[in-house]
Amino acid sequence: MIAKRSFPLSRVHRLLESGPVVLVTTARKGKANVMTMSWHTMIDFEPPLVGCVVSDRNHTFGILKATRECAINIPTVELAAQAVGCGNTSGRRVDKFRAFGLTPVAASRIGAPLVGECYANLECKVVDARMAARYNLFILEVVKAWIDPSRKRPRTLHHLGSGEFMVAGGTIRLPSRKK
Amino acid sequence: MIAKRSFPLSRVHRLLESGPVVLVTTARKGKANVMTMSWHTMIDFEPPLVGCVVSDRNHTFGILKATRECAINIPTVELAAQAVGCGNTSGRRVDKFRAFGLTPVAASRIGAPLVGECYANLECKVVDARMAARYNLFILEVVKAWIDPSRKRPRTLHHLGSGEFMVAGGTIRLPSRKK
Repeated sequence: MIAKRSFPLSRVHRLLESGPVVLVTTARKGKANVMTMSWHTMIDFEPPLVGCVVSDRNHTFGILKATRECAINIPTVELAAQAVGCGNTSGRRVDKFRAFGLTPVAASRIGAPLVGECYANLECKVVDARMAARYNLFILEVVKAWIDPSRKRPRTLHHLGSGEFMVAGGTIRLPSRKK
Repeated sequence: MIAKRSFPLSRVHRLLESGPVVLVTTARKGKANVMTMSWHTMIDFEPPLVGCVVSDRNHTFGILKATRECAINIPTVELAAQAVGCGNTSGRRVDKFRAFGLTPVAASRIGAPLVGECYANLECKVVDARMAARYNLFILEVVKAWIDPSRKRPRTLHHLGSGEFMVAGGTIRLPSRKK
C-alpha cells in the first residue's frame, strides 16, 4: 500500500458525487466492522456533509448510533470481490477485515479504522441522526480525507443491483459553471 | 423517440443507485423547468423513496416546495451538452426545454412533464420536505416509472466535479445476496 496524502475537504464532493460503492468502517469495544454501501449522497460542499442510508438490520446501524463515527472508504474494481463479500456477511458473526484480507489503518480523528487498500478514505462524524428512526438516514460530516496520490483514474464500482456493477469508464469534460 | 414502457417500481433502485446525473423537471403556472442534479440517493426499495438535494438558490427549490411534484429523468452521454446547459442556466430566465431542444412529454401521475429524450423517467411526489429548510433535502416517492426498452446498456453520466463526467463503462457480475 502506498502512503496516503491529506486531501482537501473542499474537494471531497468530487470523490462521492459520481455514486461509487463504498465500504463503511466502524469500531466498538475493540472490534472493527466493514459494510458495503451504495445509498449515499453529498448534502453540502464545505464542511462536506454526506447523507447515507444504513439499514437497521445491519450490524453497522447500532454501532453508528452508539459511537457516532465511521469512515467511508472508496474501493476500485480490484476490490470488487471483497466489496461483495463484505455485503454478503454480517459483522455480528465475521471479522471481515480478517476474512477478506483487508488492512485496518489507524485514522487520525476517529476510532474506526480505515481500509488501507481503498484509494480514498473519509473520516466522518455523525452530525445528525434524527432521520435514522424513520429513514435509516444519517448525516455525516467528513472531518479528514485521505487519498492515494498515485491513482489518477480510479476505476470505481457502481451498483446496478443484484451483484451487477458498472465499472467507471472514460471521462469527458464540458464547460460548466458548477463546482 | 421510442415509446416508453412502464417499469416496475420494485426495480427503480437499479436505475438510481449507480449515481447517475439526472434531470429534474417541474412545472408551475403552465411553465415547465429542468435542472441538472447529482446529489441524490435511494432511501427505500418499495415504495421507492429517493432523497435529493436541491439548493435553495435554484429556481426548482421553490417550485418543488409549492407543487410537491417532479420527475427524475435519466440522460445518457448523448445528452451531455444538454445536461450541462441545464446546469448552467436558470429557469427564472430561460425556457430550458426550448433552449436545449428537449421534448416535454405528458406524465401520467404528475403535472410536470417528462424529458422525452431521456432513457428512463420517474414520476415523483414529495412525501417529506421537513429537511428542506436545514439541508435542502427532499424525500420523494416514485409513483410511476417509464423506460425505453431498446436501451440495454445505457451509458449514464456521473459527475466528477467542475464539468468533468465519468461515462458508465463495462459491467461485472459477482454472486451477491443483495437486491
